Amino acid sequence: MKQKLSIIKIGGNIIEDQESLSEFLKLFAQLEGNKVLVHGGGKRATEFGKRLGIESKMVDGRRITDAQSLEVVVMVYAGLVNKNIVAQLQANKCDAIGLSGADANAIIAVKRPVNTIDFGFVGDVMTVNAESISKLLSAEFVPVFCALTHDGRGQLFNTNADTIASEVAIALSQNYDTTLYYCFEKKGVLRTITDEDSVIKRINMENYQKLKQQKIIVEGMLPKLENCFHALNKHVQQVCIGDISMLEPNAQLFTTITL
Amino acid sequence: MKQKLSIIKIGGNIIEDQESLSEFLKLFAQLEGNKVLVHGGGKRATEFGKRLGIESKMVDGRRITDAQSLEVVVMVYAGLVNKNIVAQLQANKCDAIGLSGADANAIIAVKRPVNTIDFGFVGDVMTVNAESISKLLSAEFVPVFCALTHDGRGQLFNTNADTIASEVAIALSQNYDTTLYYCFEKKGVLRTITDEDSVIKRINMENYQKLKQQKIIVEGMLPKLENCFHALNKHVQQVCIGDISMLEPNAQLFTTITL
Repeated sequence: MKQKLSIIKIGGNIIEDQESLSEFLKLFAQLEGNKVLVHGGGKRATEFGKRLGIESKMVDGRRITDAQSLEVVVMVYAGLVNKNIVAQLQANKCDAIGLSGADANAIIAVKRPVNTIDFGFVGDVMTVNAESISKLLSAEFVPVFCALTHDGRGQLFNTNADTIASEVAIALSQNYDTTLYYCFEKKGVLRTITDEDSVIKRINMENYQKLKQQKIIVEGMLPKLENCFHALNKHVQQVCIGDISMLEPNAQLFTTITL
Repeated sequence: MKQKLSIIKIGGNIIEDQESLSEFLKLFAQLEGNKVLVHGGGKRATEFGKRLGIESKMVDGRRITDAQSLEVVVMVYAGLVNKNIVAQLQANKCDAIGLSGADANAIIAVKRPVNTIDFGFVGDVMTVNAESISKLLSAEFVPVFCALTHDGRGQLFNTNADTIASEVAIALSQNYDTTLYYCFEKKGVLRTITDEDSVIKRINMENYQKLKQQKIIVEGMLPKLENCFHALNKHVQQVCIGDISMLEPNAQLFTTITL
């Protein structure tokens, strides 16, 4: 039987609020079994970029990562955010080890192909090195990934943290019985967007189609759920979406997604 | 018989010059056997600090690391410098994994006690976790340390890179036959400071005393050598001082220090 593995992705809202982050890290540290944390960088990269006089470049509403922005992203994601999370996890007796995709050659990407927009130093994940990550897990370390990848030829890339989480989960599901958790500010996928407690507890392929037709699941939640089903189709056992309390023992109010 | 381990520390002059750094990383990647890299941050932290409007605070000519400076140091050392080194090593087929002292709980420090000066968030190394670092080496990773430590309670510290290198060497010499390399801009300890080729090839306790008396070794080199003898007294096998070329196969012109 495969060992269990939990992969938890936290979003910007949790990282930016010191109290939520502390609370989350305490719960994460207490989680039993193999685990991996994936975090974005929140607004701190934009904030430091501004202070350094680097403007966020946007084309057609999409953010471009030029060389200067990449420097800021690397500093904030892999430096400030990652090392503070690692130090706090160590304080909670969790043997964390902070990683970019370059460390241990963990996540190899290619520069996003230029179609109509050149996104700059943005990487699309090509390969997750499940062997390297498994070696760290076997040695009882807890990998903490920031949202950076590399091309294996010396170039770092900015990469979407949700994608890193799902690709790592997919790659490790060969060796582990893997659950992927997306931890954000809502209690789950909501039936009524204005009602925090209207969490849809279970979504599968069948009722997902209905929820789409009924326009209960719309807009930003659609690509998120497509991403979840992609992971499930690639042998991730289940995907859970909810807020920090989802990691509490006996938590009940969150969304579980299965095929 | 113990396995061999090389611990190499590179200084700011190498890090700041992209060509020297590339050349060094190529040589480092080719080194056989277990190895660890330790790097400082060079002047880039000061430069980014200035751009962020953070003044370097000095008291009696000593640099103070306040909360804002610590943020910059963490971003530059653990982010920008460390991740670019790791990505370049990976490009050279060296399976590097970048670490601060918080990662894998590798280096625990205490805030430097306030005597006459409060240095701020500067840590003095207390314990090197040889077991954690050995686990990474056994898994065939190459640890790359930046000059940061932590107190185990969530606080990161700025710590001297020379000290990190010698303390890591001392701790690992229990398990490995350890050689410590200090790689800087000179070819070694010079007999005549103006003559780059006047390298003293061998220094031991006996001729060190003479070289001190004859005022051949003076000023900044004295604490460096005291630090080397400290490591040797704590069972590090040998210490070598020289420039990048010291890592070339069949290198001859550098200083070897033994007891």
